[in-house]
Amino acid sequence: MEHLEGRESVLAALAARQRRFQVILVRQGARRERLRDLLALAEERGVPVRFVDEPELRALAHGATHGGVLAVCGPKPRMTPDQLAEIVDAARAAGRAPLLLLIEGVEDARNLGFVLRTADAMGVDAVLVKKHLWDFDPVEVARPSSGAYERLPLAQVEDAAALERLRGQGLRLVGCLAGARRTIHDTDLTSPTILAIGGEKRGLSGAVRSLCDAFATIPSRRGGPALSLSHAAAIVLAEAMRQRLAAGGR
Amino acid sequence: MEHLEGRESVLAALAARQRRFQVILVRQGARRERLRDLLALAEERGVPVRFVDEPELRALAHGATHGGVLAVCGPKPRMTPDQLAEIVDAARAAGRAPLLLLIEGVEDARNLGFVLRTADAMGVDAVLVKKHLWDFDPVEVARPSSGAYERLPLAQVEDAAALERLRGQGLRLVGCLAGARRTIHDTDLTSPTILAIGGEKRGLSGAVRSLCDAFATIPSRRGGPALSLSHAAAIVLAEAMRQRLAAGGR
Repeated sequence: MEHLEGRESVLAALAARQRRFQVILVRQGARRERLRDLLALAEERGVPVRFVDEPELRALAHGATHGGVLAVCGPKPRMTPDQLAEIVDAARAAGRAPLLLLIEGVEDARNLGFVLRTADAMGVDAVLVKKHLWDFDPVEVARPSSGAYERLPLAQVEDAAALERLRGQGLRLVGCLAGARRTIHDTDLTSPTILAIGGEKRGLSGAVRSLCDAFATIPSRRGGPALSLSHAAAIVLAEAMRQRLAAGGR
Repeated sequence: MEHLEGRESVLAALAARQRRFQVILVRQGARRERLRDLLALAEERGVPVRFVDEPELRALAHGATHGGVLAVCGPKPRMTPDQLAEIVDAARAAGRAPLLLLIEGVEDARNLGFVLRTADAMGVDAVLVKKHLWDFDPVEVARPSSGAYERLPLAQVEDAAALERLRGQGLRLVGCLAGARRTIHDTDLTSPTILAIGGEKRGLSGAVRSLCDAFATIPSRRGGPALSLSHAAAIVLAEAMRQRLAAGGR
């Protein structure tokens, strides 16, 4: 069982319907009006709520940011390849060109959380990550993600087969690469796309590069510092949003 | 006196010529070829280098990321209003439309470091910050900034006079505001511009808003999470870069 801490994370997880909830713990004396939507949603989902005292909450919580709300629940599930295919189909059925994000080389939970938050804000349909990311502390991922960790479908992509299947569904794999000949502005991101972004140190792996349909670079000042992974992702995702708005596609 | 830790920070500070150096400490036995450029630049600038043992370095260092290099030097200077005016003039003289970044509501040193790194990568000429940012631990700001903390001119802007003076030099103050009628894509960022971005919680202060010439919003998914300050800054700065490249201005 995992813990979710804080009103926002618990509310997002309840709304996302991805996890199995065991119980939600609320500090006695917590302001009810602040928790009205959470308590209503818990009731709707049939999740028991227990009112506990501060020491009991503190004993279970990682940090001090729970604000009087903590949930005990199953882990965030990983999408299976079939579920991922369904997500892609559903985006298409809704009239949208699916946008997926593949990230490699994320070094800590906090950065992953920020990447998810930006991806959710920019309308990404699912995020593809490597296996080791599941070893991160989920509370540390969830905190900076502002609920995106709960809402966004996450899939583990370890081998070429998963990416080949998505390409078979008509998605183009676009790798972000420093020094690529084309910029992100000259690269079409309005069609169904998987954006692949690598870590600051090693960039994209050879395995992913060998599958890419196109490469694109983020223009920057000559001699300037390299962007961090999460900030590079924000810039590329925002460019996809810009192109899609300009094309009238969303 | 402050400490700079790590080869990259010390090298960036030497190259930036903003701080006064007292001494550079290098761990005995450190690989000389890795430090060749640093040692050459220190000699050129007349900064003494002392070789010390690991315990002495450890006693001075904040953390474990110094990698055998630590400098003792004066603080990073804040640009005066006159110096800021000179930076603006110099950008113009070089045929570039000056681009400044004003940030409010940064909550920790690490986020400030990331903002500076992206700003440097996107060709910002100077960053304007509020007074309290000078209370951050400079080592914690410098580490994620990848040298940008040393290279980028920083000015403290506390009152309207400083911003009015810059507007008098022909810079437009563009405030980023959730829900503004125009998007960043519909807002001209190619002319001399100060981009103003506020913190996640309160946004831009009333004082800065009242001085803005225009407001612009970052398009995002309806119902999605708010962007973090540093990621919002990355998206807006990259949009300025895009517009300027498209206009052939850089």
